[in-house]
Amino acid sequence: MLRESIHHKVPEPTLRRLPWYLAYAKLAQQQGEKYLSSTQIAHNIAVDASMVAKDLSYVNISGRTRVGYHINDLIGVLDDFLGFTGTHRAFLFGVGNLGGALLHDRGLEQFGLNIVAGFDAKYELAGTSINRIPIHHISRFEDLQQKMRVNIGILTVPVDKAQDVSNIMIAGGIKAIWNFTPFRIRVPENIVVQNTSIYAHLAVMFNRLNELK
Amino acid sequence: MLRESIHHKVPEPTLRRLPWYLAYAKLAQQQGEKYLSSTQIAHNIAVDASMVAKDLSYVNISGRTRVGYHINDLIGVLDDFLGFTGTHRAFLFGVGNLGGALLHDRGLEQFGLNIVAGFDAKYELAGTSINRIPIHHISRFEDLQQKMRVNIGILTVPVDKAQDVSNIMIAGGIKAIWNFTPFRIRVPENIVVQNTSIYAHLAVMFNRLNELK
Repeated sequence: MLRESIHHKVPEPTLRRLPWYLAYAKLAQQQGEKYLSSTQIAHNIAVDASMVAKDLSYVNISGRTRVGYHINDLIGVLDDFLGFTGTHRAFLFGVGNLGGALLHDRGLEQFGLNIVAGFDAKYELAGTSINRIPIHHISRFEDLQQKMRVNIGILTVPVDKAQDVSNIMIAGGIKAIWNFTPFRIRVPENIVVQNTSIYAHLAVMFNRLNELK
Repeated sequence: MLRESIHHKVPEPTLRRLPWYLAYAKLAQQQGEKYLSSTQIAHNIAVDASMVAKDLSYVNISGRTRVGYHINDLIGVLDDFLGFTGTHRAFLFGVGNLGGALLHDRGLEQFGLNIVAGFDAKYELAGTSINRIPIHHISRFEDLQQKMRVNIGILTVPVDKAQDVSNIMIAGGIKAIWNFTPFRIRVPENIVVQNTSIYAHLAVMFNRLNELK
């Protein structure tokens, strides 16, 4: 697990929990709250108050004694810190089941991810579009990338193509790969990989359900 | 974090890694391999060999010294163990961006999850369908559930509806909730919750990309 030895400023578990706090803060804001303390957040989402305080210490925000954080500030700072207010352009590789589904998900754009094109090896997909996002043959990637300089590649190809397509992405200058396949791709040290295998989560759920019986 | 104190037979990290081994085994099988050792798996997906061996010790399979596991057996046993060969019926709640996208993903069925209906509060969606999966108004859930006795509920509603809709699911007899919202729902102890917040993964990727600069 070489990659895990890299020192990161903000630990991954913190980065995964901050969106929970953000989601709760937005809900509380809708309900008319003006201030929010880490204790309130902790209580409402059933995590430890000291963990919430520690996680929020990575974010540049200061609360007021007793009342906590001003809720609008907290939301603004978290949205910003997590990158949800930016516009990060991405290419998607593999317009199959999951790839097509992700192209349908307009929610990604609300979180700062703008998929600008999809690529696939199937010639019949080239020239089509999903959700107004154009789909090109994979052979056009290098060309388009030279013009567009996209940093993020979403990997939704079949397992047996995962490594090859990752190599093509990296050769073209992609800096971060969001890997939705259950295949562990190997990449140079300076390439960011985020693994999101939703089918692995499914396995956990099936197992826990079985335990109930 | 009360829920984490429950004792599980198979640890969650193991359940999340087993699909990696399965994916690699299927790839090796395609390439004509007959046997596969934990060392080979470890080497090819860049994890520790002792971890692979330990993870596989939870699965009922025995390898042969030197050659390892018979690859067909390994695939069959893993597929089965992870629940991917079964048919688990699920209802989906919230046919918005992500919910609609998941209905489009036929891949879930290949992993044993069969979404049999979607529910939404929008009346104009009732009577429509996505990918041949019928969509009903949420008010019809209780009725349909009495006939269908579905165990799994997929939660893709807006954050401010997450808790209410979870309560409705549980009251109707749903045993496991696959929560795609960034909201931490609170559930009774005997209810399985699997959190899959893909937007939280996005935050991790954005942060790591920023560190490169």
